[in-house]
Amino acid sequence: MTPSAADRADLDPQAPRIPARALLAFTADAFRACGLPDADATTVAAAMIEADLTGSDAHGIFRLAQYVRWLREGRINPRPQLELQQGAPAVAVVDGDNGMGHLVMSFAAEAAVDMARQTGVAWVGSRRSNHAGAGGVYAAASSANHMAPWGGAEPLVGTNPIAVAIPAGDEAPVVLDIATSVSSFGTIRDHALQGKPIPEGWVIDRAGKPITDARRATEGSLLPIGGHKGSGLALIIGLLAGALNGAAFGRDVREFGTTAMAEANTGQFVIALDVERFVAREKFAAEIDRHVRDLRGSARLPGVDAIRIPGEERRRRRHDRSQHGVALTPALLAQLDELAASLKLKPLREY
Amino acid sequence: MTPSAADRADLDPQAPRIPARALLAFTADAFRACGLPDADATTVAAAMIEADLTGSDAHGIFRLAQYVRWLREGRINPRPQLELQQGAPAVAVVDGDNGMGHLVMSFAAEAAVDMARQTGVAWVGSRRSNHAGAGGVYAAASSANHMAPWGGAEPLVGTNPIAVAIPAGDEAPVVLDIATSVSSFGTIRDHALQGKPIPEGWVIDRAGKPITDARRATEGSLLPIGGHKGSGLALIIGLLAGALNGAAFGRDVREFGTTAMAEANTGQFVIALDVERFVAREKFAAEIDRHVRDLRGSARLPGVDAIRIPGEERRRRRHDRSQHGVALTPALLAQLDELAASLKLKPLREY
Repeated sequence: MTPSAADRADLDPQAPRIPARALLAFTADAFRACGLPDADATTVAAAMIEADLTGSDAHGIFRLAQYVRWLREGRINPRPQLELQQGAPAVAVVDGDNGMGHLVMSFAAEAAVDMARQTGVAWVGSRRSNHAGAGGVYAAASSANHMAPWGGAEPLVGTNPIAVAIPAGDEAPVVLDIATSVSSFGTIRDHALQGKPIPEGWVIDRAGKPITDARRATEGSLLPIGGHKGSGLALIIGLLAGALNGAAFGRDVREFGTTAMAEANTGQFVIALDVERFVAREKFAAEIDRHVRDLRGSARLPGVDAIRIPGEERRRRRHDRSQHGVALTPALLAQLDELAASLKLKPLREY
Repeated sequence: MTPSAADRADLDPQAPRIPARALLAFTADAFRACGLPDADATTVAAAMIEADLTGSDAHGIFRLAQYVRWLREGRINPRPQLELQQGAPAVAVVDGDNGMGHLVMSFAAEAAVDMARQTGVAWVGSRRSNHAGAGGVYAAASSANHMAPWGGAEPLVGTNPIAVAIPAGDEAPVVLDIATSVSSFGTIRDHALQGKPIPEGWVIDRAGKPITDARRATEGSLLPIGGHKGSGLALIIGLLAGALNGAAFGRDVREFGTTAMAEANTGQFVIALDVERFVAREKFAAEIDRHVRDLRGSARLPGVDAIRIPGEERRRRRHDRSQHGVALTPALLAQLDELAASLKLKPLREY
């Protein structure tokens, strides 16, 4: 059985937890075994385990087996030569050479931060990249099309996600990380694995009728948030991450589940903004703290126990899991044991 | 009776149309009569009438009487000294000196384009600005709070809009211009004026129950698109347009409908990106055309007559209204006649 990420919430609170250190070392070793250079293996592992620590479980070690398969099949280049093509002082495109998306986006984000230190803001896109997991602070043209254009029946647009992080002072950074669809494809897959139906309003078939059997979701289209509004956001993100960078969008995107070995040619972009070019860092931090507290302390709707600011729960979880480790489902643990054997690594529990 | 913008769609197709030229000249004269310098009056009028031409009727000449009232009451400064505070080569903040928002954002957008020609991308924020209508290509912290934080009952966040425009070749530019709420406040006000109920899902009261009487909407909170997702987008936009620029956000925003004379201190930001620093202009234009045609020509849901790409209808309308003029409701025409008399201008129909 393929393990499920979302059901971790249902795990016994007494379930054994794997230390973050072990997850990191095991994941990096797995990538090394697939041919990634040492430093790159560490970078990708760090990005993935960060997702486990902050709660984006569906983008963490849960994905390792899939990435290993893609690397072994030659779908992803284990030793890419990343190239920064800087068109102007504040803009660049990274050619990812079909490497791991986490590597490409870590490189792009570092370049953007470096450039923004000079210019105040920088916009760095990517082409020939791949799925880059979560925990990033970027927008992306998804590497698979699951949404139709508004009014359409053919999935030609991704659930193109957008993520933003704003630093605070004592409060947690405000972090938003959302797909432009009502439900992410990962959540739907999770329902399928657990045999649970999905609610109406998530997926429609080609006749516009709701699909509630999660296993049939790939026959239809995911619905965008806010109707034409979310659909428009997904389109804009797709054009800026795809067409602007020379990456795939629309009919260029390889069909989901295809066995073709073509590069995904995924496009992404990241914007870095230097707050200190606008206002002193401490003053900004104090302002964000003040606003977060105002919102958190405001009147609540009946039945709501707390107003949660995006990023708050993430920080709490990261603290807890860094200290106490990450619980994995028995199915995922079993899958990772198999993976370890096939890569000739020692099992995760011995790390 | 206060005129309604949205009911223009119901106008008799034979209704007389006012030439764009006349709308522009009348509007500019009205602002001159309120003390705006010649060039500024023309800039603001051009931004407003552009909204009438493209179909954002609720942000066009429909708003003139309100702006004139605010200028006469001293709420908005007719002769602001705009100041560009450039913190780095690619970032700046415009201090709007409490002038008309259209003026501030036209200035900010021009500055951003100039800067982006050097650096590839530029981010220009504003503080001490005001409501800037539609037709802009920017994000804004709304000048009034109509949404609660997710789970909250107190409206402390605006319906903070976001607009993006991407040039194409022969196809219309892709233009997205959306509020982060399910319905804009203007649309709700329009329902109120017409005595029409609003559907469930637009507004809730402080107990979380739907409000369907449009006249009671100000007692509640507008709902965001996509639940916590749209709420998060509104929060992020508010913090970047407000807190980052030293403009109002959250509890700083003056209460809606208040008679207090305090500045709105509205914040906005605009990002200009120079496509040619990524790819040759013609190649990009051809790519956008290709993708737009692929989406438009893809399979449609039953009952959908055409897949419309955002920006398409806008271009069609602009062409029609530039040639044949803009139809206004009798109520709006009557209001503008009154306004003309009070400003000692000749009536609109004599322009």
